[in-house]
Amino acid sequence: MKTYYLQKAEKNLPTLHAENVRIASEARELHSGDSFVLDLESHYVGYLSFVLGYTNIYPDAPVRLCVKFCECRDELDANFSSYRGSLCPSWLQEEIVNIDSVGAYNMPRRYAARYIKITVLFTPQTITLSDFVFTAVTSADKYGLAQFEVDDPELQAIDRVAVNTLKNCMQRVFEDGPKRDRRLWIGDLRLEALTNYYTYGHLALVRRCLYLFAAADCNDRGYLPGYVYENPAFVSGYWFLRDYALLFVVTLCDYYLHTGDEQTFLDIYPVAKRQMVAIRSELDANGIVATRENDDIFIDWCEGLRKTTALHGVYLYTLDILSQTLTALGHGDAGAYQALYEDAKNAALRYLYNADENNFVNAYDGYQVSVHSAVWMILGGVVEGLRAWELLRKTMRNPDSKKAVTPYMNHYLVEAMMKLGKREEAMEHVKRFWGAMVAEGADTFYEVFVPGQPEVSPYGDKMMNSMCHAWSCTPAYFIRKECQKNRRK
Amino acid sequence: MKTYYLQKAEKNLPTLHAENVRIASEARELHSGDSFVLDLESHYVGYLSFVLGYTNIYPDAPVRLCVKFCECRDELDANFSSYRGSLCPSWLQEEIVNIDSVGAYNMPRRYAARYIKITVLFTPQTITLSDFVFTAVTSADKYGLAQFEVDDPELQAIDRVAVNTLKNCMQRVFEDGPKRDRRLWIGDLRLEALTNYYTYGHLALVRRCLYLFAAADCNDRGYLPGYVYENPAFVSGYWFLRDYALLFVVTLCDYYLHTGDEQTFLDIYPVAKRQMVAIRSELDANGIVATRENDDIFIDWCEGLRKTTALHGVYLYTLDILSQTLTALGHGDAGAYQALYEDAKNAALRYLYNADENNFVNAYDGYQVSVHSAVWMILGGVVEGLRAWELLRKTMRNPDSKKAVTPYMNHYLVEAMMKLGKREEAMEHVKRFWGAMVAEGADTFYEVFVPGQPEVSPYGDKMMNSMCHAWSCTPAYFIRKECQKNRRK
Repeated sequence: MKTYYLQKAEKNLPTLHAENVRIASEARELHSGDSFVLDLESHYVGYLSFVLGYTNIYPDAPVRLCVKFCECRDELDANFSSYRGSLCPSWLQEEIVNIDSVGAYNMPRRYAARYIKITVLFTPQTITLSDFVFTAVTSADKYGLAQFEVDDPELQAIDRVAVNTLKNCMQRVFEDGPKRDRRLWIGDLRLEALTNYYTYGHLALVRRCLYLFAAADCNDRGYLPGYVYENPAFVSGYWFLRDYALLFVVTLCDYYLHTGDEQTFLDIYPVAKRQMVAIRSELDANGIVATRENDDIFIDWCEGLRKTTALHGVYLYTLDILSQTLTALGHGDAGAYQALYEDAKNAALRYLYNADENNFVNAYDGYQVSVHSAVWMILGGVVEGLRAWELLRKTMRNPDSKKAVTPYMNHYLVEAMMKLGKREEAMEHVKRFWGAMVAEGADTFYEVFVPGQPEVSPYGDKMMNSMCHAWSCTPAYFIRKECQKNRRK
Repeated sequence: MKTYYLQKAEKNLPTLHAENVRIASEARELHSGDSFVLDLESHYVGYLSFVLGYTNIYPDAPVRLCVKFCECRDELDANFSSYRGSLCPSWLQEEIVNIDSVGAYNMPRRYAARYIKITVLFTPQTITLSDFVFTAVTSADKYGLAQFEVDDPELQAIDRVAVNTLKNCMQRVFEDGPKRDRRLWIGDLRLEALTNYYTYGHLALVRRCLYLFAAADCNDRGYLPGYVYENPAFVSGYWFLRDYALLFVVTLCDYYLHTGDEQTFLDIYPVAKRQMVAIRSELDANGIVATRENDDIFIDWCEGLRKTTALHGVYLYTLDILSQTLTALGHGDAGAYQALYEDAKNAALRYLYNADENNFVNAYDGYQVSVHSAVWMILGGVVEGLRAWELLRKTMRNPDSKKAVTPYMNHYLVEAMMKLGKREEAMEHVKRFWGAMVAEGADTFYEVFVPGQPEVSPYGDKMMNSMCHAWSCTPAYFIRKECQKNRRK
């Protein structure tokens, strides 16, 4: 099957659309040590070219430049050589190039940038640099972008930035953050695909990504890896995250529910089924997902977070959407998943929920209070209505509770609010969280954003953070989906 | 005419022959900080490629390498960032590259190297580097190399290194030193063309270079520039050296005398004539070349050298070969140049030569004693026979005399010895000077070589010296020419 899945993935390889972003600037006369900044006026992903010339004397030695690509203004003055974070420093976008000849020069690598800082390290004579062109690439077709207007200018602005974020992450696959990884992660894919249905509607790209994961090697326990590589060749990932494995099933169901493409669903359904078998086989005696270790669950970057309740919520959420999807298809497995859902829900009510106090503070998670538990239990349908809303609000307001850190977890928080019918409050949260990035001047939404903590980084150094990150693009999904509903009324 | 000359130059653009030099080495497993050296086993000019792979875990970030190309072993440990010489540091052959994908990687620039040092600056996982290939390029056709053997193994070894030096400098033009300049210099061209007639016999390449200079812009005084650029476009040089302008005429004459190609000679003869008009118009009242300034004469890199006598020698040498060539052609100008030669020779005997002391210590050069004056007066035919040989030997042995520094000046010293019929002594000098480089393990002959002074550099830092330099290739000319003569006997 692997070969078949890879062939299908290849068949759905998207065209990359190139757009030449011309950078308004006169030819600059430059000497060794000179430095200047180009502003692309928005965030783009692509390739830089320029023309090297000279004033009076033909340069009689190569010209050595340092070219630094920055996603935000802060990076311009950051000293990359001082980086001591956990990820490989080679991700920091800085090149030293030696140019032998005057004329056009095309830098060969792809970068993600709004600003470009060029420093002339050495030139033998006065040179000029001119005709800067940034060739932006994306598989998002701008002519395919769904027209959209909303009366609220703040939401309109948030939508614009969200769409730009998605666009720049849409390449050969749905990338997570084009400054770094070009691999495909399930958690990001799910949110990008969802937003894509309401914006660019690039269905082939979703199909491609689903087939790529279908071709991946499951681990001994039967789970898909959290990511795959696809360029220059397919490589299955080494890191296994159980919530991501479940969200692959969700992504497949989302795809069917949005497209009605039965063939693709059925093609990949065996892989989805395998995830469900794997997780079921690991339920404990109480019927709760076992979490012997925390490092095979993602949920959120939140220091010290206990994750059993949240993972059980992801399991419920997956069972729910899968049985709905199979029902819609008239598939014989639907009833079995519905039954599993009921069992898992009952187990949650019994072992994870504290009805007296209306919270999900339980022994599985060492009595830790977390927004994550609350959100995923709501998304899993364990609690509902006003009681659920009270539970969520209380948890969010509790100064001792673990809070959502990533835009990814904030997405599920908003999704939970929406599920509870709290549309206004959901939009308020979108404005409070994503709107604060827009207010800061963001062209795209960040990988990490903790209001009031600009230096926070999961990698020990802010320089490494991605400022255009797929899992932050979902406000466009919420805003547009709401708009559709309002229109239908 | 410029367009015509450039068209002719283009028509004679040589094919570059590529040879894949495979570097014996197993795939290396490497981590950040690891470093190793590849040995090409000889000096080559060309392009490096290799294959990036991995052991267990696919590298999840770009791999950043520092790749240093070294012409000699000393360079391997040199710290290029400590360079403080006069030429632009961008000539130092060191690149920092970021590689995004496993698979074949082709470095885009050309380098001159025997050793390549690769340091893994950053890699996220254990990588492998393998399949190193250095694609050596030259316009010298190895099948066209004249077969040659000499009984003396030392001369045979010197010839081999000389031929290798020439080969590596033969590219789109006769380059002077492929580590740095790719421009065409007259002084180097003359010696390369001469050696080429006895080795690779690439006549089109000589023609191309002659036409390129013919297309150059003469200065207000009528002289050709010392160099031109030809890639990516033709650019006339800015530095004017009168001895080089005269040696252009010599190079043209050499070409005719070796090929009998009348058309090319006559095409370019007007340019040659212009040089002769220019220098003649600047003779002083005594009929000696005027030298108001020293910086438009090269002769040699020899600190404090006074150059009038030597330049007058170059003038005589040029007049001599030009009148010989025109005589061979049956050209009407021959007699006029012969007459100018006699005048200039008489002026030299009167104002430059001290017959009492049999030396060229004169007021023009502030009574400085130099090998340079002696050599060029001999080559100009001012003194001859045993008396000339005594003069030369005396000057060479004089501890106070200025000595030949560059291989370029050493060429003319050997040529002067040959002219005096001192073949054995000439070959002894070849062995003493060039042979000492071979004894050091040279693969090619250096730009600068002063026995006992390994750190000497015209640029204030040895790191900048070129270790494969065109003007050092002439032992192959002397040795092979001698051999031909011996065979004819």
